[in-house]
Amino acid sequence: MKQFKLAIAGATGVVGRKALEILESMELPISEYAFFSSKKSAGTKIIFKGKEYTVRELKDDSFDEGFDYAIFSAGGDTSKHFSPIAASKGCIVVDNSSAFRMDENVPLVVPEVNIEDAYENKGIIANPNCSTIQAVVPLKPLDDKYKIKRIVYSTYQAVSGAGKDGISDFENTAKGLPPTKFPYPIYNNCLPHIDVFLDNGYTKEEMKMINETRKILHRPDLKITATTVRVPVLNSHSESINVEFENDFDIEDIKNLLKNYPGIILYDDVKNNIYPLATIANGHDEVYVGRIRRDESVKYGINMWVVADNIRKGAASNAIQIVEALINKRLEEK
Amino acid sequence: MKQFKLAIAGATGVVGRKALEILESMELPISEYAFFSSKKSAGTKIIFKGKEYTVRELKDDSFDEGFDYAIFSAGGDTSKHFSPIAASKGCIVVDNSSAFRMDENVPLVVPEVNIEDAYENKGIIANPNCSTIQAVVPLKPLDDKYKIKRIVYSTYQAVSGAGKDGISDFENTAKGLPPTKFPYPIYNNCLPHIDVFLDNGYTKEEMKMINETRKILHRPDLKITATTVRVPVLNSHSESINVEFENDFDIEDIKNLLKNYPGIILYDDVKNNIYPLATIANGHDEVYVGRIRRDESVKYGINMWVVADNIRKGAASNAIQIVEALINKRLEEK
Repeated sequence: MKQFKLAIAGATGVVGRKALEILESMELPISEYAFFSSKKSAGTKIIFKGKEYTVRELKDDSFDEGFDYAIFSAGGDTSKHFSPIAASKGCIVVDNSSAFRMDENVPLVVPEVNIEDAYENKGIIANPNCSTIQAVVPLKPLDDKYKIKRIVYSTYQAVSGAGKDGISDFENTAKGLPPTKFPYPIYNNCLPHIDVFLDNGYTKEEMKMINETRKILHRPDLKITATTVRVPVLNSHSESINVEFENDFDIEDIKNLLKNYPGIILYDDVKNNIYPLATIANGHDEVYVGRIRRDESVKYGINMWVVADNIRKGAASNAIQIVEALINKRLEEK
Repeated sequence: MKQFKLAIAGATGVVGRKALEILESMELPISEYAFFSSKKSAGTKIIFKGKEYTVRELKDDSFDEGFDYAIFSAGGDTSKHFSPIAASKGCIVVDNSSAFRMDENVPLVVPEVNIEDAYENKGIIANPNCSTIQAVVPLKPLDDKYKIKRIVYSTYQAVSGAGKDGISDFENTAKGLPPTKFPYPIYNNCLPHIDVFLDNGYTKEEMKMINETRKILHRPDLKITATTVRVPVLNSHSESINVEFENDFDIEDIKNLLKNYPGIILYDDVKNNIYPLATIANGHDEVYVGRIRRDESVKYGINMWVVADNIRKGAASNAIQIVEALINKRLEEK
């Protein structure tokens, strides 16, 4: 069987390290791995699948080695510079930054939802924002059957989404130390402020959820609004999602659609206190969906509560699933 | 000046103790105070305004002493039994439990919104649910001017709302100890479960927000939905409120209406990272409102972020403000 070469850029970050951990447990037809980072972290030793690797500084000639795939989790500026270089050398980049997500030449992909878009790539595929990924997985089957009219998102996002510094702030502000990553202590606070504020009063995170949902669902005019909030939780994002449909539905059918959709665990039995929680989603690649109930304030609407591990499904796992699908597709075509 | 007699039932609980702290700093024309509790906490000594009081067990004859007002924060069952007894003896009860809130003979009052309703009492006035109080304060001026069409609530509620046991769970589960109040550790989790689940899939807390908002705003048919969530924050509830109006508005006028409304602090200057936070609202009686922005997904809508100290404005302060208004009204009438 053909073997492939995979590079990880940003290998020492929170998402990069999680990608390594996940890849270590998988049996992909990958014969060579290479790990890159900024100059600062270069030299770090990594034990991966029983072998020691040295993390190397990402440079313009890094992709001369002939990689088939690269996963980038190194921030927007790094991606903007290096992804086109990698792509120009025949490497398909799955980029975890926001740099290319809204580029019309770059597919924005959640494998359960729109893997076909990935096959149309021109060298770069964007991994969506963590809070978007977990939302669109349950929204897709509902949109297909009942056509979504409007979405109201309110999120409860973990500090791990802000990387190592977010995690440090969570630990440090709990001890009474001042924050260094967030503008205020995340301890004992819910901060309605993720990424920068834009002129329309929304944060960039909120606009990402709105625009990325539209692109992934191929619904460019879908009505969506969002309030995104950082909460004092270490890992896994929770989301309160209010959905209005064009068409009438049966609530049991909604539950069945979600239960049978790939990548979803229907976790919804409130009489037995079964509903999604961060500590339940941690360490899993599935999106947990529960608290599904009819919203009587509109003609056809529901509320649901959606939780997923933002570092796995919201970042590393989703990127790896894209690479895996591309590999399988290429192997099938042989 | 006429002096009044005030009783506090549930004086040793989280809300009762906060009521004492607030009353201690006020100069009300109250000449006599009495403090009651369950049998379990009776005998507790309290120093109040420089004088030592012994908390007494609440009994059927407790109100024979001729109180003018009583604030009850002792749970629904206690209120159901003792409030009518107190009222029958001429005492006006402000009840913090949910026992009488939806009783059509009992006014449900937030002073800034509908104090006139309190003047029509038949001996019992209900203090609304904490999450409802802070929501209706900013909603009232907006409803008056632009007529609200629909509300979507998503809440971020502090553990202090669950009393001493909620606070203990927050502290204990952070240390890895098992929860005793909540069904799961609140540490590192957002629990979409406050109060009990009802047959329609909503929690009682969610239905309280829906029904109480309608009653306080005198809008019995207002379209409302809610998802209420406990978050790992010690004190002060945050709320993501999405509001759709019947009529067009200017966003600056919305801000001005809120800025000039009693009991509200407009805290909205995102360019300077000014938005409401739990740690900012703690210890204050005002409702903090910010992140006000147009929701482009409906014809006339906004999102806003509303934070208040749930033990003060959400419980103790609101009850005291009702008593204060009743006293002032009675003094005016003399």
